[in-house]
Amino acid sequence: MAPGKKGILERLDAGEVVIGDGGFVFALEKRGYVKAGPWTPEAASEYPEAVRQLHREFLRAGANVMQTFTFYASDDKLQNRGNKLSFTGAQINEAACDLAREVANEGDALVAGGVCQTPSYLSCKSEKEVKAILKKQLDVFIKKDVDFLIAEYFEHVEEAVWAVEVLKETGKPVAASMCIGPEGDMHGVSPAECAVRLAKAGAQIIGVNCHFDPMTCVEAVKMMKAGVEKAGLKAHYMVQPLAYHTPDCSCQGFIDLPEFPFGLEPRILSRWDMHKFARESYNAGIRFIGGCCGFEPYHIRAVAEELAPERGFLPAASEKHGSWGAGLEMHTKPWVRARARRDYWENLKPASGRPLCPSMSAPDSWGVTKGHNDLMQQTEATSKDQLKTLFDRSKSN
Amino acid sequence: MAPGKKGILERLDAGEVVIGDGGFVFALEKRGYVKAGPWTPEAASEYPEAVRQLHREFLRAGANVMQTFTFYASDDKLQNRGNKLSFTGAQINEAACDLAREVANEGDALVAGGVCQTPSYLSCKSEKEVKAILKKQLDVFIKKDVDFLIAEYFEHVEEAVWAVEVLKETGKPVAASMCIGPEGDMHGVSPAECAVRLAKAGAQIIGVNCHFDPMTCVEAVKMMKAGVEKAGLKAHYMVQPLAYHTPDCSCQGFIDLPEFPFGLEPRILSRWDMHKFARESYNAGIRFIGGCCGFEPYHIRAVAEELAPERGFLPAASEKHGSWGAGLEMHTKPWVRARARRDYWENLKPASGRPLCPSMSAPDSWGVTKGHNDLMQQTEATSKDQLKTLFDRSKSN
Amino acid sequence: MAPGKKGILERLDAGEVVIGDGGFVFALEKRGYVKAGPWTPEAASEYPEAVRQLHREFLRAGANVMQTFTFYASDDKLQNRGNKLSFTGAQINEAACDLAREVANEGDALVAGGVCQTPSYLSCKSEKEVKAILKKQLDVFIKKDVDFLIAEYFEHVEEAVWAVEVLKETGKPVAASMCIGPEGDMHGVSPAECAVRLAKAGAQIIGVNCHFDPMTCVEAVKMMKAGVEKAGLKAHYMVQPLAYHTPDCSCQGFIDLPEFPFGLEPRILSRWDMHKFARESYNAGIRFIGGCCGFEPYHIRAVAEELAPERGFLPAASEKHGSWGAGLEMHTKPWVRARARRDYWENLKPASGRPLCPSMSAPDSWGVTKGHNDLMQQTEATSKDQLKTLFDRSKSN
Amino acid sequence: MAPGKKGILERLDAGEVVIGDGGFVFALEKRGYVKAGPWTPEAASEYPEAVRQLHREFLRAGANVMQTFTFYASDDKLQNRGNKLSFTGAQINEAACDLAREVANEGDALVAGGVCQTPSYLSCKSEKEVKAILKKQLDVFIKKDVDFLIAEYFEHVEEAVWAVEVLKETGKPVAASMCIGPEGDMHGVSPAECAVRLAKAGAQIIGVNCHFDPMTCVEAVKMMKAGVEKAGLKAHYMVQPLAYHTPDCSCQGFIDLPEFPFGLEPRILSRWDMHKFARESYNAGIRFIGGCCGFEPYHIRAVAEELAPERGFLPAASEKHGSWGAGLEMHTKPWVRARARRDYWENLKPASGRPLCPSMSAPDSWGVTKGHNDLMQQTEATSKDQLKTLFDRSKSN
Repeated sequence: MAPGKKGILERLDAGEVVIGDGGFVFALEKRGYVKAGPWTPEAASEYPEAVRQLHREFLRAGANVMQTFTFYASDDKLQNRGNKLSFTGAQINEAACDLAREVANEGDALVAGGVCQTPSYLSCKSEKEVKAILKKQLDVFIKKDVDFLIAEYFEHVEEAVWAVEVLKETGKPVAASMCIGPEGDMHGVSPAECAVRLAKAGAQIIGVNCHFDPMTCVEAVKMMKAGVEKAGLKAHYMVQPLAYHTPDCSCQGFIDLPEFPFGLEPRILSRWDMHKFARESYNAGIRFIGGCCGFEPYHIRAVAEELAPERGFLPAASEKHGSWGAGLEMHTKPWVRARARRDYWENLKPASGRPLCPSMSAPDSWGVTKGHNDLMQQTEATSKDQLKTLFDRSKSN
Repeated sequence: MAPGKKGILERLDAGEVVIGDGGFVFALEKRGYVKAGPWTPEAASEYPEAVRQLHREFLRAGANVMQTFTFYASDDKLQNRGNKLSFTGAQINEAACDLAREVANEGDALVAGGVCQTPSYLSCKSEKEVKAILKKQLDVFIKKDVDFLIAEYFEHVEEAVWAVEVLKETGKPVAASMCIGPEGDMHGVSPAECAVRLAKAGAQIIGVNCHFDPMTCVEAVKMMKAGVEKAGLKAHYMVQPLAYHTPDCSCQGFIDLPEFPFGLEPRILSRWDMHKFARESYNAGIRFIGGCCGFEPYHIRAVAEELAPERGFLPAASEKHGSWGAGLEMHTKPWVRARARRDYWENLKPASGRPLCPSMSAPDSWGVTKGHNDLMQQTEATSKDQLKTLFDRSKSN
Repeated sequence: MAPGKKGILERLDAGEVVIGDGGFVFALEKRGYVKAGPWTPEAASEYPEAVRQLHREFLRAGANVMQTFTFYASDDKLQNRGNKLSFTGAQINEAACDLAREVANEGDALVAGGVCQTPSYLSCKSEKEVKAILKKQLDVFIKKDVDFLIAEYFEHVEEAVWAVEVLKETGKPVAASMCIGPEGDMHGVSPAECAVRLAKAGAQIIGVNCHFDPMTCVEAVKMMKAGVEKAGLKAHYMVQPLAYHTPDCSCQGFIDLPEFPFGLEPRILSRWDMHKFARESYNAGIRFIGGCCGFEPYHIRAVAEELAPERGFLPAASEKHGSWGAGLEMHTKPWVRARARRDYWENLKPASGRPLCPSMSAPDSWGVTKGHNDLMQQTEATSKDQLKTLFDRSKSN
Repeated sequence: MAPGKKGILERLDAGEVVIGDGGFVFALEKRGYVKAGPWTPEAASEYPEAVRQLHREFLRAGANVMQTFTFYASDDKLQNRGNKLSFTGAQINEAACDLAREVANEGDALVAGGVCQTPSYLSCKSEKEVKAILKKQLDVFIKKDVDFLIAEYFEHVEEAVWAVEVLKETGKPVAASMCIGPEGDMHGVSPAECAVRLAKAGAQIIGVNCHFDPMTCVEAVKMMKAGVEKAGLKAHYMVQPLAYHTPDCSCQGFIDLPEFPFGLEPRILSRWDMHKFARESYNAGIRFIGGCCGFEPYHIRAVAEELAPERGFLPAASEKHGSWGAGLEMHTKPWVRARARRDYWENLKPASGRPLCPSMSAPDSWGVTKGHNDLMQQTEATSKDQLKTLFDRSKSN
């Protein structure tokens, strides 16, 4: 950490708002640097300028956390189902740490080393094996001296607890974030119970990320907070939701939606939706507020603009954004200047422009989770026969 | 032009597909470098790394044209309605040329110097005044030796013809692109008639950009082509539409939609919509195919992937994209692997996730255009009184 | 005609508003007396009390015309595709005349004898054969002394003209109404040209009915009126549209919509939509204003309420309806009493309650019309093989 | 009861399906005989032929129960808020009994005397006063010797229990049906608890009616059944839901929806929705299955057609309806004949034809219930001042 910067717990203990960044895999997929399917972060080594630029945009938008671009950077994931990479896991993790640190140094941001769920767990590997996989990423984070650690995107609280246990051994502050909604984890453990187990395992910051839209995630974190408090424990809370509206999700989240991952455009939140999210999070007592898949820099800026009164300042990128649309005062057309006001944007119900499309989908809901044979992972590519079986099964639904 | 590269007319005369880039102002607005309202391109001077990165992403996605980020970079626009900039128009135009050239040199791309409609025209300035404004940008383009010129985003054919006349004096190839749909320009001149006038003025490439969704723009270009051919003239054709669905627009295009510019998210086209656009454009005989506002690099990549059979190669960024979703074969969840096929994505009708929102909007349709007092521009900021009048007028609609 | 009643032309010549009734086949299908598919009116003989009751409801709602329930009561239609009836065509036509006259006598209504297009025409029978078919219905109408005649629901102007020619021989006033929209008849003849031909054939009242929603029908009648006036001819105008919203129809109208006929519920117009329709019709110079498929008595009442200022009185059924929702002043719940006002209902955008459904459909558009082999009719029932061919063809779309 | 007919309990004890009729107030409102707002049934005296016809249509559609058209026929309701009637409550109740009996005698149907919640209860009158009001209707039912009694449309279980207690004194079989959903009554009493209290009070048939769509109502009855069984009690179950889709309702049901009561058209269920409802009800163990507001005769026919295998016969009205669309085999157009099959209609997602409308609404949710001052009823008409207060309050929402 740069001298003079306050650590993550110091900030949260003081009641400060900490703004996270947005999800890198989806943003970089659209920019051409991440492949949907494997979703692995080799771009940290391959195209550092693209990753650096995205870090910088989030920093400029108001983020206080530069999370290392190490999502799915565990060795078992990097080699899953025929993914061919020319970089080792260690190389990718190291490059990601360097990029995060470089940009963090340009502003008031901390570096968070991130790990997430592993294919090994889905494939029913033992606690020891899963922990060993996670440990390899941590070795890099310690070497690169990240400021704190985040175990995120866990669907099963059992694996999340294992991750926290591994992370705690480093002595760094530990945040734990599950990709669950109000219905709880994939085995039906409630958010409240998940949070209690994570707190007992030593996580100092607890919350949810990904899989659901902002309001659903805030609801889940509220349930976590209530559970932790009822158990007489203490924690800080974080939320890093999708930037997609998902009122139609079941417990598996947006992975189940027919639109995942290449047809989600109509669901993207506007900046005004983000204002509501930021306010709702703050009111719920959540102080670490960021984003996940779908977040673009302007979404984080909207969070920072909504919480500017609490933080005492606007983010750098607001030089290019009039709050609540005020920049439109400079538009050439009079009817657009007429939209330069908060009540216009707050009340707008934006149309989809898609009259042949519905407003909600029926999720796939195959109902398989860890332990189910369909979820066993493999290093070789999915075969044509395996695909045919899947295609047929899907059509018969 | 780098030695060995073919010029724009050489390519089009040979029947090659030329892929354009996407719109910079909207993409950079989301990244935090352009202000919605003035929409001016000072970032070329202020944040060159951000502009360079976006150029690079479009190049990687398959673009053959690096258009200088000089939209609304005429002096009268840079100073309109209280916009305060710390760079001169000349500085911005020069910086934009350098960035475009730098990235064009990294691949098979040409540099196009771009000019667009002026506030002076809207404010009823004379032909001489308007041409003088445009001439100042051209001086920079000549100095920086761009490969060809584009006069784009003209709502009135009269001004577009003036622009072509100025551009022709340089001796560079000239493309002319209007922001009109099938209903024609703001004074009711049909696309066919607009095209004929542009061709007669000397434009070698004619088409439309911005304001309407891809299918609407292709329809307008078809009408242009039919007009030019009926008049016994010759031209090449270009189309650079929005990446927003706009079935509900009137002749003014998306500017009139209540969602413009901060609530357009639900209308964003998917990559599969872009495949249809690219094919439809090609079938219509259009060979210069690119994008405008709303286009992200993955949209251009989709155009390049659809036209890979015609071009003979995939774009660089396809290393990170399995055509028609093939990358999903590597996904951990079986029901997502079941989506790794063309017919799934071609037939998907994506939901908006917004059950309280409609599918279409009623455009504002104030019905004012050049000559109307409401459109007179001013250098001073819009006053509170002026805003109040606009707000009231809007509410009473 | 009852002594003292003014005839249809007398009313229209005087500039009076004449309100038609609504469609009987759809209304009685929902009540259990008409079979969807053949759509034949044998209920006039089988269940006279049900038909009489519906006449009475429309009379009470404000209708000035009791149209005989003789839609598709030509002999060739009554025997088409295996339809088995225990009544002759003549019996049905006679019974229908008696019922219409009985109820017309209860108020200020005229009896209109109605004929419509024939399967014989679709099957390419000769002019002589088609006219002979129509003549048989007319013989009953003359015997029963109806007040005037309506040739309605014609898709092809050629057949409509034949019908008018037959009807004119009776000496009764003749109205001619086609089921076309702004795109014209099934062979592409424009509404203006259709109207001119009908006027020249002797029709005194000209318009459209069925197939499209009210606003589309009014648009088509406007085009007819413009055509007739341009040709220096004179006519009165009528409109009897669907009570279904059909913004997505092609030239074949709602028959093409995937929802026809058993899934049209979400498209049903509200009474407030009918107010707009009535006003728009009146403003367009149309004075014979009624309804077709989907109209229930309350829809006709809404037309009569909107035009009460012009007519000088409210319909009888308004004793059970407070104009613009005023009856809600008596509701027990305060928030419902808060809706007892015009601006509430005029501005309401009613939700569908169907989040999985879109707002528009893609019409079937098989593109077959008279002369195409698929349209040859037959007296025997559709065979299983014939059905299988159709089902397969439909799936491959 | 006609000699030879089995009583309601006899049928249910034998496991037979009993099909109810549909709601009269909404159906007759559309036909012009009931006023929305007061919703009182004076038409039984004023227009007996209209009421008789509707009874007959439901009988023909398959109904085994002719419920007397006595909804809101208690004296306190008949005189509420300025409602001016020229018939006494006793006259209306008697006329309704005679009509129900007359039509019941034409088929296999029983007569059910119906009472519902009272303004007196909402206005905080005492148990004694409320029971006295209900007793007056019962006196007529006993005099007319109805076959059984239904206490329906109760929002508060307390009043429903009072009603059951009064009804039990007659010795007739008693059904009790509340207008609640899964969230329970207006004071938050769960469906399970409501059902237990009703069973203990002596109701032999228990269920819900009105306020919610079919699937929601079935869900609530399932909860009631589970509660009764858990309490070791016994009952039969009934469900008579809306024919409107209401996924967006809060605990107050469709009264809260902005579309109530004059903009509900887009929500009307299709006959195919009714098939699903009938099957779901049957599978849930519900044997008294009918409808409430929005049900037209064809909706009841669809219920009877779905349950024809269990009942052993089709209803009379199926002579005019080919099951699952088979009648379309006789349609003149080939693409409509292609729809004469179950899988077509079962999978259709019908469009609304309303591109400017959303799929869901935000309910009013004023949150007032019995005991709240806003719900005090009055015999005088709502004054202009009272209305103004309501209008303002509504707008500020």
